[in-house]
Amino acid sequence: MRLTIEHTTGDGARAGRLELAHATISTPAFMPCASHAVVRACPPHLVAGLGIEVMICNAYHLWQRPGADIIGVMGGLHEYMSWPGALMTDSGGFQAFSIGGNSGISEEGFAFRSHLSGELLQLTPEVSIRIQNQLGSDVAMVLDECVAYPAERAYVADSLGRTARWAMRCKHAHGREDQALFGIVQGGVYSELRASSAQMTVDIGFDGYAVGGLSVGESRQEMLAALEAVMPHLPVDAPRYVMGVGTPMDIVECARRGVDLFDCVLPTRNARHGSLMTWQGPLNIGRREFVTDERPLDPNCSCPACRRYSRAYLHHLHRAEEAAGWQLLSLHNVRFYVELMERLRAAIAGDSIAQLAEQLSPWTQRDNE
Amino acid sequence: MRLTIEHTTGDGARAGRLELAHATISTPAFMPCASHAVVRACPPHLVAGLGIEVMICNAYHLWQRPGADIIGVMGGLHEYMSWPGALMTDSGGFQAFSIGGNSGISEEGFAFRSHLSGELLQLTPEVSIRIQNQLGSDVAMVLDECVAYPAERAYVADSLGRTARWAMRCKHAHGREDQALFGIVQGGVYSELRASSAQMTVDIGFDGYAVGGLSVGESRQEMLAALEAVMPHLPVDAPRYVMGVGTPMDIVECARRGVDLFDCVLPTRNARHGSLMTWQGPLNIGRREFVTDERPLDPNCSCPACRRYSRAYLHHLHRAEEAAGWQLLSLHNVRFYVELMERLRAAIAGDSIAQLAEQLSPWTQRDNE
Repeated sequence: MRLTIEHTTGDGARAGRLELAHATISTPAFMPCASHAVVRACPPHLVAGLGIEVMICNAYHLWQRPGADIIGVMGGLHEYMSWPGALMTDSGGFQAFSIGGNSGISEEGFAFRSHLSGELLQLTPEVSIRIQNQLGSDVAMVLDECVAYPAERAYVADSLGRTARWAMRCKHAHGREDQALFGIVQGGVYSELRASSAQMTVDIGFDGYAVGGLSVGESRQEMLAALEAVMPHLPVDAPRYVMGVGTPMDIVECARRGVDLFDCVLPTRNARHGSLMTWQGPLNIGRREFVTDERPLDPNCSCPACRRYSRAYLHHLHRAEEAAGWQLLSLHNVRFYVELMERLRAAIAGDSIAQLAEQLSPWTQRDNE
Repeated sequence: MRLTIEHTTGDGARAGRLELAHATISTPAFMPCASHAVVRACPPHLVAGLGIEVMICNAYHLWQRPGADIIGVMGGLHEYMSWPGALMTDSGGFQAFSIGGNSGISEEGFAFRSHLSGELLQLTPEVSIRIQNQLGSDVAMVLDECVAYPAERAYVADSLGRTARWAMRCKHAHGREDQALFGIVQGGVYSELRASSAQMTVDIGFDGYAVGGLSVGESRQEMLAALEAVMPHLPVDAPRYVMGVGTPMDIVECARRGVDLFDCVLPTRNARHGSLMTWQGPLNIGRREFVTDERPLDPNCSCPACRRYSRAYLHHLHRAEEAAGWQLLSLHNVRFYVELMERLRAAIAGDSIAQLAEQLSPWTQRDNE
């Protein structure tokens, strides 16, 4: 893995290229969620057609179905999905924790019941790394505890130590040379704890660093403060990833502070609810006003929905709950994020992030809702 | 509308071209069902990419949502759907009858409650034609009563008279010169009634003739006997359409007897249940044996699923109930029908339908299940 930084701004934003085992991607990059080895409603070749270079899959879900060993036998996730780009995997900790009923965390790992088979299972740092090794993603993540918001300082502080010990066990268990391993910084909204977690994680030493536990309910101000507490501690030459973030404005504000990688379910989940992103602002396709609107969602967008179909037809497909509509709207929103990242990289190269943030002002209201 | 017959066989099969207002199609042709103005899970441009030249939409469903007037205002169905090929519309009678709770048929038409709004509505011959005129399909169908199977001879005989009177009212109400109107022959499994219905329908005079009320539970033998009772009464120069048929073998056997047009929900409905059609025979992708099968569904198929993905991945998407899987499997089954019709037209040109039927022998067992 190699990060080449081509442009930086005074703020600390950076744009460049990240060479991974299966593909080189432009950064800052957005990764759509392909938790079950597919972006919901969108076969991989259609996602590739939008310009997406990297996706994130979920170790928990793929462990449960079809099984990490199955994907290993098939030559790894890239081959299994026929995906030409790069792939990251999440550790599965968040899912084991939340699906398993918020219980069963111990020094050893997570104990939980499979939501599919009902079987009692353990997700430890070693198990998560074994799964991700079998999946063969370009980047694996350490197992961590994503602390909920709000959380008491004492609980967060206590959790940090365990997360650091797990990170060490993950690093020890990790065997694949063609797979990068990222550590994860936690610490809730407590700047001191964030800084201390960052330092512990960097001391262990990883190929890249993620900031987890953000976009879980805190305000944007709290989120950016937590991020700012972390960034000075991270090495400049390693990629930085903010997990689960976020809205267009969140992404711009995080990139401004030096983040290289993002993932979020927003584009596809919003599409399912008819909530679309355009450069003219948000648009809810289910609204009655679109029933005879002959215009495309966004005249400048190159996605299949905008190139071929009217708002009226997309309104109809959405109201009729047709899967074809869900797909077209998802492709549009994912394409919006591709273009957002293109504009963001250009803005970093041209030192004009403030103007890009201004262009996103139609979004600000919605972001804060 | 003009039918050009280019090849005929001794049995009475024929292959040629049917010129319609928006497109010329090769016959015999298969029409996938786009009841709600979309083939389920498959946006129109992906269906066009398979080689489909004509689809069938449903007047009842589009009347209910978004409304035939809306589609009329939008310039008609072709423009609304951005569909480059031809379109047929069904009259909506079958849906008004079945969704409306099997009640409310009178000389006037069907009285029923909308399954969406609960409103009490009437679908008469005049209303159905007005809707189809607004939709602007290339071919409209008369309103008829599709009698269930089994039905008493006396009921079927009584229904025929009404269907003929409705056909006359439809012809009288029909106004668009750029839209063909097809009559529908009923008569259940009673050859004498089929012949009499055919004669009445031809006496009224339509651009083409459909045979309805088949593939509703009767045996293939009964279906073909009913068809054979009808065919001698239909003019050679008008297109013939068997509604709702059917399995690959049914299509071949009907085409052998001179049918030009077919529609059926089978390819997409089967795909939803993981039941796939290949030239090696039927294949149920949900079966455990496919979990690590690296082969495509059918090595000779040109659909997106076969060109890009393994059975193992499609098995996973199907088991995970992912909409992307439903789409890929639907595209495969629809492409199978496109190829079936290509082979059927070639077999008619080469007078080798018997050999094509032989190729479909892996299907025969399944067809009869």
